[in-house]
Amino acid sequence: MQNSESTTINVAETKKETKGKAPLLAAPMATSSAVVETKGGYKKGIAIFDFILRLCAIAATLAATVAMGTTEQTLPFFTQFFQFQASYDDFLTFQFFVIANAIVTGYLVLSIPFSIVCIVRPHATGPRLLLIIFDIVMVALATAAASSAAAIVYLAHNGNSSANWNAICQQFTDFCQSVSGAVVGSFVAVVIFVFLVVLSAFALRKN
Amino acid sequence: MQNSESTTINVAETKKETKGKAPLLAAPMATSSAVVETKGGYKKGIAIFDFILRLCAIAATLAATVAMGTTEQTLPFFTQFFQFQASYDDFLTFQFFVIANAIVTGYLVLSIPFSIVCIVRPHATGPRLLLIIFDIVMVALATAAASSAAAIVYLAHNGNSSANWNAICQQFTDFCQSVSGAVVGSFVAVVIFVFLVVLSAFALRKN
Repeated sequence: MQNSESTTINVAETKKETKGKAPLLAAPMATSSAVVETKGGYKKGIAIFDFILRLCAIAATLAATVAMGTTEQTLPFFTQFFQFQASYDDFLTFQFFVIANAIVTGYLVLSIPFSIVCIVRPHATGPRLLLIIFDIVMVALATAAASSAAAIVYLAHNGNSSANWNAICQQFTDFCQSVSGAVVGSFVAVVIFVFLVVLSAFALRKN
Repeated sequence: MQNSESTTINVAETKKETKGKAPLLAAPMATSSAVVETKGGYKKGIAIFDFILRLCAIAATLAATVAMGTTEQTLPFFTQFFQFQASYDDFLTFQFFVIANAIVTGYLVLSIPFSIVCIVRPHATGPRLLLIIFDIVMVALATAAASSAAAIVYLAHNGNSSANWNAICQQFTDFCQSVSGAVVGSFVAVVIFVFLVVLSAFALRKN
C-alpha cells in the first residue's frame, strides 16, 4: 500500500512537471530538433556537392594551366636571321594566365580538407566562412586570368585594323587552338567557382 | 497562518521550478537573447557599411563607364585618304568594358533598396542571400571587363614584338591615358565588390 502510494505520487509529480514545461520547453525542443535534422541533411548535401564541384574545378584549372604552359609553336619556314616561333611566354598576359591558374589550382587542392570538414560537420560556420572568403578572391583571380587571355586570343584571331595589329592565327594555327582551349577551361572553372560561392552562401544562412 | 503557509509553498515551488529549469532553459534563454542583441547591432553595422560601399562602387563603375565611353582621339595629322583616329569602339574589348560596366552600375542602383532593407531588418536572410548571389555574378562580370581591357591597354602601351603588334600609345597619348583611368576605376569597383561579398557572408552566418 505504501508502495502504490509512492508510485501515484511519483506519477503525479512527473505529470505536473511535464505539464509545466510543455509550453516552455518540450514543444520548442521537439520542433527545433526536427528542423536541425532536416537542415542538417540539406547542408550535408550542399557540402558534398561543394566537394564534387571542387574536384571538377581542379580538373578544369589544371588542364588550363598545362594547356597554356606547354603551348609553343615553331613555324616550318624561317629566314636567315629569324625563326618564326610563338610561345605562351611571349605574351605577358599568358604568363599571368599560367601563374594565376597555378595559384587557383593550388588553393583548390588546399581547400579540399576544409570541404571535407564541412561534410563531416555541416553546421560548422568557421571553415565555411573561410572557404567563401578565399573562394571569392579566387573567383576574381580566375576571372581576371581567363578574360585577359580571352582578350588577347580574340586579338590573335581577328587582329585590329585601327591599331594596325594583324591576326596571327593564320600562321600560328596550333598555337591559337591550344591557347583558346586553355581559355575555355579557365572560364569553366570560373563558372564552377561562382556556383561554389552561391552554394556556400546558402549553407551559411542561419537556420 | 494559512496564507503564510501557501506563500512558503509557492516560494518552494518556484524555487524548485527554477532549479529544475536552470540548466535546461533559463540559462540558455538568457545567453541566446543577449547574443541576438549584440549580433543585431553588429549585423546592422555590416548592413550600413554595405550600403556605403555600394555608393562608392556606383561612383567607381559610373566613372569608368563614362571615361571609357567618351574616349576618342583624332590625331592632328592626316593623309589624303585616311585620318588617324582612335575611339573606344574600335576595340571590341573596350565596347564590352562599357557595356559590362553599365550593367554593373545599373545593378548597383537597383540593389540599393535591398541594401536599405538589410539595414532596417538586419536578421532577414532573404534580401541578403539575393544580394550575395547577384554580387558574385557581378564580381565576375566587372573583373572580366576590367582585366580584358587591362590586357589591351597593356598591349597598347608596350606592344608585342613576337606578334609584331606596335605600341600605339606613342601616338594616341590622350586616348591611352583616358582608357587606363577607366581600367583603374573598374578595378577599384572589383575590390569593393569582393569586400561586399565577404561582408554579406559574415552577415549571413547563423547566430
